[in-house]
Amino acid sequence: MNINRQWVLAKRPSGLVTKDNFTFTESPIPTPGEGEVLVRNLYLSFDPTQRGWMEDRESYLPPVGIGEPMRAGSVGQVTETRHPDFAVGDIVQTTGGWQDFVVVAPNQGPMGLSKLPAGVSPEMMLSVLGITGLTAYFGLLELGNPQPGETVLVSGAAGATGSVAGQIARIKGCKVVGIAGGAEKCAWLKNEAGFDDVIDYKNEDVNARIGATCPNKLDVYFDNVGGEILQAALNHINLNARVVLCGGISGYNATEPVPGPSNLMNLVTTRSRMEGFIILDYFPRAAEAIEDLLGWIASGELKYQVDLQEGFDNIPDTLQRLFTGQNLGKQLLKIADPV
Amino acid sequence: MNINRQWVLAKRPSGLVTKDNFTFTESPIPTPGEGEVLVRNLYLSFDPTQRGWMEDRESYLPPVGIGEPMRAGSVGQVTETRHPDFAVGDIVQTTGGWQDFVVVAPNQGPMGLSKLPAGVSPEMMLSVLGITGLTAYFGLLELGNPQPGETVLVSGAAGATGSVAGQIARIKGCKVVGIAGGAEKCAWLKNEAGFDDVIDYKNEDVNARIGATCPNKLDVYFDNVGGEILQAALNHINLNARVVLCGGISGYNATEPVPGPSNLMNLVTTRSRMEGFIILDYFPRAAEAIEDLLGWIASGELKYQVDLQEGFDNIPDTLQRLFTGQNLGKQLLKIADPV
Repeated sequence: MNINRQWVLAKRPSGLVTKDNFTFTESPIPTPGEGEVLVRNLYLSFDPTQRGWMEDRESYLPPVGIGEPMRAGSVGQVTETRHPDFAVGDIVQTTGGWQDFVVVAPNQGPMGLSKLPAGVSPEMMLSVLGITGLTAYFGLLELGNPQPGETVLVSGAAGATGSVAGQIARIKGCKVVGIAGGAEKCAWLKNEAGFDDVIDYKNEDVNARIGATCPNKLDVYFDNVGGEILQAALNHINLNARVVLCGGISGYNATEPVPGPSNLMNLVTTRSRMEGFIILDYFPRAAEAIEDLLGWIASGELKYQVDLQEGFDNIPDTLQRLFTGQNLGKQLLKIADPV
Repeated sequence: MNINRQWVLAKRPSGLVTKDNFTFTESPIPTPGEGEVLVRNLYLSFDPTQRGWMEDRESYLPPVGIGEPMRAGSVGQVTETRHPDFAVGDIVQTTGGWQDFVVVAPNQGPMGLSKLPAGVSPEMMLSVLGITGLTAYFGLLELGNPQPGETVLVSGAAGATGSVAGQIARIKGCKVVGIAGGAEKCAWLKNEAGFDDVIDYKNEDVNARIGATCPNKLDVYFDNVGGEILQAALNHINLNARVVLCGGISGYNATEPVPGPSNLMNLVTTRSRMEGFIILDYFPRAAEAIEDLLGWIASGELKYQVDLQEGFDNIPDTLQRLFTGQNLGKQLLKIADPV
């Protein structure tokens, strides 16, 4: 059957993303041109930054157009090839989007097109070795520059990025405290991921608990959430602290602008820095990160979790899981098995 | 007469500083011990950061204690010496405070004690070559790192720090836009200080005017005010912008926490940095700054203004001038002439 199922952007969200923002549609399977391949998506990646791609505003990538398949990272299998470096059956990483099939070329789209390294599963490629793992690696090490003995606080700590960032800080000899929502996530961070301490923002006073768990103050704060938790962290920064702005999920679904921290002057009195980054800029250096990450996984120092949903029909609902905090670890969805 | 007039901190401010926060008192003139000198204050420096010193909170300097003379930078004259490097009659810079006389030693207090270089007047020492000039120099060049052809926006641009920061940016080959309050300040910036463009925040839409005057966006934003103007600037930052947090005078007299910018995520999408600093950290490098600043003054490239008040009785009112925007350029007050 010549059918390419798609979830296309139907209307831009106001507030929380719902299934109504997307429309299910069917179109013909596209045909690759010279230098292109046809990929069947097997696994889709779900990332908080996708919320921003749905907005009609200038950002680091153009907005997804109304009527276009929702943009998403993916792992798929080559089913037709007109590029000499790719053979039918190859398992590849690309920006497949919310659809069964995509035509791509190696230098096309934010993720390009690349074969998975030997021994790397799709789940691993889209989580700890993928955008979220690389984001944790370069954000923490390049911007955070953690030194042995320093204190590192991570918000969104049970998420795909935060959990890796915190563990890398631990591996680098830092004291690491994580902020996450709920007992299950906190238990995983402490018992499996080896965080020194955890703060349950749903049940604890975050500001007081940062003070209690970080008596030497924060040298690095790796922020995935923004909002009140960013403000609480800024109350406790050390001299020459580095605040790594990775994301601000607490504000992504807001319908009104969310006020920023009222204590930015703490950056002045402590001579501290707050810096943002986009992982796309570090893609040329992905190999060095992947080598380190694979090594730490092999040695048992780095744990990761995948929350794997299944079924094409469940794609829109799966995106919502990120914003309601349902996912524990990297959110993926499997569409199909490789043949 | 053995009388040392003083204005001491009587109560901590809530909101705008008023004369009621201080009490006039008279005490005996202190006597220098071994290695100390007695200095008679001639000129006092007024700086927005003094507002922070009046608060009972941890910061980069301890708070001024209730009943203590208000802390202030000063230029004075040595009237009694027990230190071999200082002679009676020397004109010196120190942290003299709001009083006629102070006993100091070279390594004591945030400013230490140093003789004025030959040919440097007290007004020059306390303005363009003093804390505000050094703040502009190191904040702009070290944190802002302006490159020729880049666009630099300065708020509080007619102030003692902002006016120097903007002119250094111009000297370094940047396009410079300043934000100030009122036609007189704006005219001085454009006609005397050579700013490329000015924005009158009291009479213009700052956000719209930044967009109109900075079509290539902001590579450096040197912020002296915080609040809504910081938010407006963040709407217009370029890729890899540097936001230099120098001060936040718009919030210094607030009685409630002032919300921060709601658009901090722009730091992420543009891969930009916001950084604070305290000029005390750069005092060991003051000589290199003073050499450059003196050269630019001599060549006519760097202009500065001093708002000189007079009279011991007027000290508390003169501090208020900073927060009501009355001063044009560096705020000083003369207590006495040298003998």
